[in-house]
Amino acid sequence: MKLNIALLAGDGIGPEVIDQAVKVCDAVATKFGHDINWTPALTGAAAIDACGEPYPDETHEICLNADAVLFGAIGHPKYDNDPSAKVRPEQGLLKMRKKLGLFANVRPTFTFPSLIDNSPLKRERIEGTDLVFLRELTGGIYFGEKGRRDGGETAFDNCVYTRAEVQRLAKKGFELAMTRTKKLCCVDKANVLETSRLWRETVQAMEKDYPEVEVSYEFVDAVAMRLVQWPNSYDVLITENLFGDILTDEASVISGSMGLMPSASVGSENQLFEPIHGSYPQATGLDIANPLATILSAAMMFEMAFGLKEEAEAIKAVVNKSLDEGVVTEDLSGKNKSYKTSEVGDWLVANL
Amino acid sequence: MKLNIALLAGDGIGPEVIDQAVKVCDAVATKFGHDINWTPALTGAAAIDACGEPYPDETHEICLNADAVLFGAIGHPKYDNDPSAKVRPEQGLLKMRKKLGLFANVRPTFTFPSLIDNSPLKRERIEGTDLVFLRELTGGIYFGEKGRRDGGETAFDNCVYTRAEVQRLAKKGFELAMTRTKKLCCVDKANVLETSRLWRETVQAMEKDYPEVEVSYEFVDAVAMRLVQWPNSYDVLITENLFGDILTDEASVISGSMGLMPSASVGSENQLFEPIHGSYPQATGLDIANPLATILSAAMMFEMAFGLKEEAEAIKAVVNKSLDEGVVTEDLSGKNKSYKTSEVGDWLVANL
Ligand SMILES: CC(C)[C@H](C(=O)O)[C@@H](O)C(=O)O
Ligand SMILES: CC(C)[C@H](C(=O)O)[C@@H](O)C(=O)O
Repeated sequence: MKLNIALLAGDGIGPEVIDQAVKVCDAVATKFGHDINWTPALTGAAAIDACGEPYPDETHEICLNADAVLFGAIGHPKYDNDPSAKVRPEQGLLKMRKKLGLFANVRPTFTFPSLIDNSPLKRERIEGTDLVFLRELTGGIYFGEKGRRDGGETAFDNCVYTRAEVQRLAKKGFELAMTRTKKLCCVDKANVLETSRLWRETVQAMEKDYPEVEVSYEFVDAVAMRLVQWPNSYDVLITENLFGDILTDEASVISGSMGLMPSASVGSENQLFEPIHGSYPQATGLDIANPLATILSAAMMFEMAFGLKEEAEAIKAVVNKSLDEGVVTEDLSGKNKSYKTSEVGDWLVANL
Repeated sequence: MKLNIALLAGDGIGPEVIDQAVKVCDAVATKFGHDINWTPALTGAAAIDACGEPYPDETHEICLNADAVLFGAIGHPKYDNDPSAKVRPEQGLLKMRKKLGLFANVRPTFTFPSLIDNSPLKRERIEGTDLVFLRELTGGIYFGEKGRRDGGETAFDNCVYTRAEVQRLAKKGFELAMTRTKKLCCVDKANVLETSRLWRETVQAMEKDYPEVEVSYEFVDAVAMRLVQWPNSYDVLITENLFGDILTDEASVISGSMGLMPSASVGSENQLFEPIHGSYPQATGLDIANPLATILSAAMMFEMAFGLKEEAEAIKAVVNKSLDEGVVTEDLSGKNKSYKTSEVGDWLVANL
């Protein structure tokens, strides 16, 4: 099979972890007889430096022409404490999501038996956790009208949702639930927000089309609590953009394997795969960043974008093997020997 | 001293836990030579049932005329899955906050040595946690214009903040930080929201007035993570209404003592004290609800509303004693004997 993949390394540790993912993907392709055509493109602070624009048109063209996008991370500290900066790397991310129509962010949180003791939670709280968030990614307060009035003294952000936007996300949620334990939780703040009431009534109306799925409705504040108390009581959760931003990050640290969590952002035409961790600027260039989340994102890509399940399983298996044998970067090595980012990549290739 | 207190028991377990707080307050008053004048008033579902309105004008008058308000909890399941309900108990809560001008919600999270093992977090993660959230309570998306367009197919909620609103909340945050370890964290989403950029620039401009306070700025998603990882790395956190709703609830379960966490909501004229737990409808009338959060809220009331620090300390001391001696409700008793709500109240009065 010929696989056309756009490669957006981004900022910080992005390029280093992407390099390992490329090595592993190429090795898998060779093993299974595929042919990957990688097309690199600029994004984030790297793109601003090069052409003043965090998501250049050229990059967009490359993504549109690819079958899938593999993405590293973006963000640079020089923009962080300057709320007035005109161009920011994150704008590139938002523009990319919007222009590629990536309306659903798929964020699993699961545990690795060998890493369970890394969790800040007690073992009995976290064992067996295997949940997936579907976060709406191209609507809500992120993309509503925003600005200032009264000479800058008043600021506003509008949160807007249409029924159709809720339906297409919820549909993915119901479908995903059908492939798992058939439990779906709709997270909202329907006791306060009109957009949440639209979410809830839309999902309620869809229940009849999926009679086997057991749907629960929970307020976002309650979910923020239960995620810490009983994360293993959830299966599939659907939610709007901002709630999803907060809750998926909260969920990610619960597993104790934040550096390992992959994600996919999908639309009706395009698909993008990225680790959930950020650009980790302090570690840039040190060859110490954990590449496994990016490599597991590549596994998701094989499965979701190309339907190549066996290839995905091969990647997951060798990642598990590296964890079992302690071939891990310093964030996971504890008191044992740690490996460099590139050494982990090489080991995975050799052991595939 | 003569203390005029409005007593809003509310719904569910509200009346039961409020009864215990009244007993304890009366006992403290007798001991220290004060005279409490309690004026009960209706709110929540109870008020809707009585007069169709969750925060009746009469209740508002009573609150205005009181020196402080002691509040139980509101909310009733019959309103929960009906997004279209015209009148909801929560509207009473929001109207009350707005009409009383309670713009700052003070929510401490701390640990009790004897309860530390109740936390879902490992001991070393939670030990020493002692943080306070100041949540803005009368602005933001809770109170902005909201509604439907396109025949109901599009819903919107507006988030609006003025610089003056941010300043008055931040001022309380700086002042509180000065009485503690002088660390202040401003929680926002300045990489996406214009209102957050206003928050950040306003707080930045105030830093010069409090040169001793070390201010950090963190994105809400990062805080949602760090609260689970290293809750004891925070001291005072300030944030807008919706972020505060989510994060304070997340923080509350971290301590393992959710049933013990008090809160205060203060404005320039009025002050209200309430447990952070909800109305817990399943437990209504069973005399099993934990009254300690309400009793500790009463302690906050003595200190903050009346400046009666010794009285507040007396309440806290006897609560600690009940925990140490295991005179607790079933949520905390583990395998040991548990006490009824009213028995805990009686024991506290007898041991004051
Ligand atoms: C960088 C930021 C704009 C982004 C978001 O809020 O969506 C990030 O936090 C994420 O979750 O991908
Ligand atoms: C009941 C609800 C409206 C309320 C809020 O969101 O403010 C509650 O969750 C709280 O935190 O006091």
